[in-house]
Amino acid sequence: MPISGFPEWLPPQRIIEQQILDKIRSTFELYGYASLETRAVEPLDILLSKGETSKEVYLLHRLQEDENARRDDQLGLHFDLTVPFARFVTENHGKLQFPFKRYQIQKVWRGERPQEGRYREFLQADIDVVGRDTLPFHFDTEMPLVIGDVFRSLPIPDAVILVNNRKVCEGFYRGLGLEDTAQVLRTVDKLDKIGPEKVAAALVETAGATDAQAAACLALAGISAADGSFADRVRALGVSDPLLDEGLAELLQVVETAGEHAPGLVRAELKIARGLDYYTGTVYETQLKGYERFGSITSGGRYDNLASVGNTRFPGVGISIGVSRLLGLLFGQNALSVSRSVPTVVVVALPSEDRRAACDRIAAKLRRRGIATEVAPAAAKFGKQIQFADRRGIPFVWFPSEAGAASEAGETGETDTVKDIRSGEQVDADPETWQPPTVDLHPSVSAS
Amino acid sequence: MPISGFPEWLPPQRIIEQQILDKIRSTFELYGYASLETRAVEPLDILLSKGETSKEVYLLHRLQEDENARRDDQLGLHFDLTVPFARFVTENHGKLQFPFKRYQIQKVWRGERPQEGRYREFLQADIDVVGRDTLPFHFDTEMPLVIGDVFRSLPIPDAVILVNNRKVCEGFYRGLGLEDTAQVLRTVDKLDKIGPEKVAAALVETAGATDAQAAACLALAGISAADGSFADRVRALGVSDPLLDEGLAELLQVVETAGEHAPGLVRAELKIARGLDYYTGTVYETQLKGYERFGSITSGGRYDNLASVGNTRFPGVGISIGVSRLLGLLFGQNALSVSRSVPTVVVVALPSEDRRAACDRIAAKLRRRGIATEVAPAAAKFGKQIQFADRRGIPFVWFPSEAGAASEAGETGETDTVKDIRSGEQVDADPETWQPPTVDLHPSVSAS
Repeated sequence: MPISGFPEWLPPQRIIEQQILDKIRSTFELYGYASLETRAVEPLDILLSKGETSKEVYLLHRLQEDENARRDDQLGLHFDLTVPFARFVTENHGKLQFPFKRYQIQKVWRGERPQEGRYREFLQADIDVVGRDTLPFHFDTEMPLVIGDVFRSLPIPDAVILVNNRKVCEGFYRGLGLEDTAQVLRTVDKLDKIGPEKVAAALVETAGATDAQAAACLALAGISAADGSFADRVRALGVSDPLLDEGLAELLQVVETAGEHAPGLVRAELKIARGLDYYTGTVYETQLKGYERFGSITSGGRYDNLASVGNTRFPGVGISIGVSRLLGLLFGQNALSVSRSVPTVVVVALPSEDRRAACDRIAAKLRRRGIATEVAPAAAKFGKQIQFADRRGIPFVWFPSEAGAASEAGETGETDTVKDIRSGEQVDADPETWQPPTVDLHPSVSAS
Repeated sequence: MPISGFPEWLPPQRIIEQQILDKIRSTFELYGYASLETRAVEPLDILLSKGETSKEVYLLHRLQEDENARRDDQLGLHFDLTVPFARFVTENHGKLQFPFKRYQIQKVWRGERPQEGRYREFLQADIDVVGRDTLPFHFDTEMPLVIGDVFRSLPIPDAVILVNNRKVCEGFYRGLGLEDTAQVLRTVDKLDKIGPEKVAAALVETAGATDAQAAACLALAGISAADGSFADRVRALGVSDPLLDEGLAELLQVVETAGEHAPGLVRAELKIARGLDYYTGTVYETQLKGYERFGSITSGGRYDNLASVGNTRFPGVGISIGVSRLLGLLFGQNALSVSRSVPTVVVVALPSEDRRAACDRIAAKLRRRGIATEVAPAAAKFGKQIQFADRRGIPFVWFPSEAGAASEAGETGETDTVKDIRSGEQVDADPETWQPPTVDLHPSVSAS
């Protein structure tokens, strides 16, 4: 029985997922990010140090454990990859070189109520850079370049990375005269859910804003631009504050660096805040064009205070691709297809069971040259063996030469032949030299 | 804090693990196995259907769940990949093509007491073939070929796959006149732990054997051969039984097919039984030469009765590589090393912070051609930037031409240059055409 919130892909979908993961990984590596995996579990106090998601944690208990033991051994499954990474860095900082760039592609678990695009088990692909004591700002500008390159390498709709900077919001609110900037941020973050009227009312009620201050907050949240013009529009609101200036300069740097790398990749979107508490500057989200209603498929930002050991801080910046969410969305729309459901390029036809050893030798020669090969499972009629390949989308069937076997329907002759079962073309072939077209070496994934 | 039994690798170890996983995966695919991943959790009744490991299961509870809810929602983490695969096949059999060959590389969890080579969280790499109603025996002969090819592709000691067949043991015990063959098998399986005298005594005590019968069981268990001679030695013990004959014929086929593929790869070892209940014929283990004391690093076998839907059975055969166990063992012996701890091939030196955009462009050109590149994190002295590369084992440092920047210590000139910091050799280079030696494109792993 399927379990709600724990998606499983069928073999063709899994091939698509794997090729997408390969592209993600190779792009991450091109930027120098090193692979890391952390254990699936963390002590509960580590997981709860980031308060908001406490109710979503899955705890582990051994089946035979008695009730008393439970209190000592409170392990839970990680719900993201940032908290475990911060723990890993503080635990191993003496063995790492800083700035430390790592990527991490792993499942995470949340005990949330499942809904479209929300799973209880899902795959994330994260990059983060962490420095010791300080981390130069230019790493904040690198995140969108990496994500942009990842998405450009995939057969999916265009992505737009939405960027904001918490310093802009906090500085603006402070400059306006609002003290509880965290409360204002949390309230404005509900804009898409509850609309501007309710946000304005909530700002007045819970953050002590006047109507004019609430209107100014909404005006800031309404600013959105694919170039540096957002800064002028913010300044035109007439608020000044040193933190606001710092945030605008940072955000401008992100937008301009991304604009040079790939025009249209990034948009300054001043309403995004990301709910989590630990971000201190830049924040990122990503929308797929035409799929905006599905919400963000990346999330990330700068966190200056997540990890420390004694007096040493490890500030970081990172971004996470919601791989399961992206795939669930695209699979749900039948937006991706794959040329076959198995890695196999060639099926070696089996004239009779007593020739299996000879057919295994042909297969071994092809495999040694990197060509994925199966020998037919049984010495059925060749028509049935071709059907075996056809049903799986395997492009080629290999017919061994007659030596030692009766010819059937003229399919076998003096030399081996190989047939492209899509075109029907059949040619003489030697397993030591025959090469399939490069495009057929692996299943190919495309937008459908 | 590290948690006992939940290993985490440092970045250089993780690169080694990843390259080993890449080799495993590509070998699996060369034989036509398709990738599959199943969810990490299974309902408790599925996990407990394979009785022996019930005490090792980790159960999941949501942190905010009340006590009453716990009984309905008994999910546990999977402790192997075979039970989830069998469940997946019965759930999706209408959407799969049989025989279905799949590989699965995932973490599994067991609440065991941790000890050397035994973890609570570990990575397995499994292949299985499952048929509908029947599964030809030749798939039993394929398992050692795949595993042999995997191990030959890795920089590790030679592996010997030990093979037995439960039909040989059960037929032999039955032919001897012993009825409770399962009890005999379980007792003989303790041979390496408790020695022959105690096994003989236990056979007399718990399986109703005479001293002569016990001695015959031990004589069978003592047979070991790298070729077909084991069959003659079994027959020389003078026991006859149809199941014994069937088992000997099957085991002979495995040994001979493997012997043709790779001499010395397989050894018939008539004492191995594998503790788990579900194997019905062939069983496999693997020892690394020189590391025999660490125990088996693969396990597997034929299971004819693990999965069924109504009257339809799905017999299978498979083998599992204990990746974490293998790596833990080799890391513990410092038996593997890697040329660098990051994917980066080139560091672009930064003459001054205002030239970062120009350096980013050089990096983008190199990345576009598949060369992993980082720009130096800060415009420090070039000596320090070279040290940045050297500490990480990055082989090349790129020096941008002077245009727009002051030359420092003669390192920058009219054109870009690239320096191999291992040899000190420095040459003119164009980011659109320069190519590092192929061997430097990725970190290289070797036996150390």
